[in-house]
Amino acid sequence: MNSKVLRTLSYGVYIVSTMDGERPTGCTANSAMQITSSPATIAVSINHDNYTNHCIDASGLFAVSILAETSAPSLIGHFGFQSGREVNKFDTVSFEMKSGVPIITDSCGYIVCKVINKMETSSHTVFLGEVIDGDVLLSAPAMTYAYYHNVIKGKSPKTAPTYIPEEESAASAPTENTSASKWVCSVCGYIYDGDTPFEELPDDFVCPLCKQPKDKFKLQEVTL
Amino acid sequence: MNSKVLRTLSYGVYIVSTMDGERPTGCTANSAMQITSSPATIAVSINHDNYTNHCIDASGLFAVSILAETSAPSLIGHFGFQSGREVNKFDTVSFEMKSGVPIITDSCGYIVCKVINKMETSSHTVFLGEVIDGDVLLSAPAMTYAYYHNVIKGKSPKTAPTYIPEEESAASAPTENTSASKWVCSVCGYIYDGDTPFEELPDDFVCPLCKQPKDKFKLQEVTL
Repeated sequence: MNSKVLRTLSYGVYIVSTMDGERPTGCTANSAMQITSSPATIAVSINHDNYTNHCIDASGLFAVSILAETSAPSLIGHFGFQSGREVNKFDTVSFEMKSGVPIITDSCGYIVCKVINKMETSSHTVFLGEVIDGDVLLSAPAMTYAYYHNVIKGKSPKTAPTYIPEEESAASAPTENTSASKWVCSVCGYIYDGDTPFEELPDDFVCPLCKQPKDKFKLQEVTL
Repeated sequence: MNSKVLRTLSYGVYIVSTMDGERPTGCTANSAMQITSSPATIAVSINHDNYTNHCIDASGLFAVSILAETSAPSLIGHFGFQSGREVNKFDTVSFEMKSGVPIITDSCGYIVCKVINKMETSSHTVFLGEVIDGDVLLSAPAMTYAYYHNVIKGKSPKTAPTYIPEEESAASAPTENTSASKWVCSVCGYIYDGDTPFEELPDDFVCPLCKQPKDKFKLQEVTL
């Protein structure tokens, strides 16, 4: 069994959102797919550890905002690398309420679903939702998971179905590996690769992916 | 509700295969995603009308072969636009048996799963499979559904979750529509767009997508 093959499945990048009582909350996800066309239903897979899982269960509603290649990459880290238990994630992003659920305006569009079934697994719940609302917002191409990894150089949170521990990821790289010392965001794994030496960046530099401050970066050996 | 937004979800293109007793069978699918990482599980959505659905239920096993951009496009029509009830689809394609299930060798790789749960919907079954085998075969990029539509100019079978009837598809096109008379494969919907006038193509011309003969093409008005 070569687990590297799992990385050849194709995904988009989504913000799955819902309500925690009166408070909007949500998380980053890549596992969303249409299941039926008439009526349209969507399945999303959310880790038990994500606070969003508990809130979807309680509210019976969720929205999928489909990120575009032009969407701010910081949305991914903002929703993916901190918990809605501790942070009001929607306090600092542009959103609108649609059919009772918050949706991200900086996206290709949104789909609002009413939960009609669910399937439990060891670590994730697969929620099946009937589509009750949706619209296109931007005409930019949808961001794929491959684009996120290859162009934005983003990583997966540990709660993602597609998470691969660093050692295994390095060991399974498709070509011969070389390594180098790079400044890496300790919160989201973003690897700084700019022209300006990291030490010369201004003190108010923040991680472009998860907006953590400069002192969260650590110099470490990474596989290229 | 603007159903066009459903087309911004990202997918790959897969052949989902299994055994019908002693006989290999399978169908084209785009709805496959990883659900958990440890142990690795995969969900696939298969229409009740697909013979493969019945066979997965009976055998408790399925494989997902991940098509590459370089895979023969005819595989998609071959597995997507004819039924395993009437045709031995594996008689004319290269395959290998892996852990008791046939897999397509002209692909990025394969994942073999043992069914551990399922969720029924109005038209599709979502099978949850624990990964028991898998490997990478080609290093070419995985074919995305967007690539299939935009580059190969392929269509969806009526049993696909993402199927949109022709009129609705045309009505929801993102830009102003123009139409033209084109030769269209009546089996898979492939639109001939070659430099040689269709009438001058040799008699042994076959649809590049589903390999149906030239006389299956009909001149019709299509939206560009």
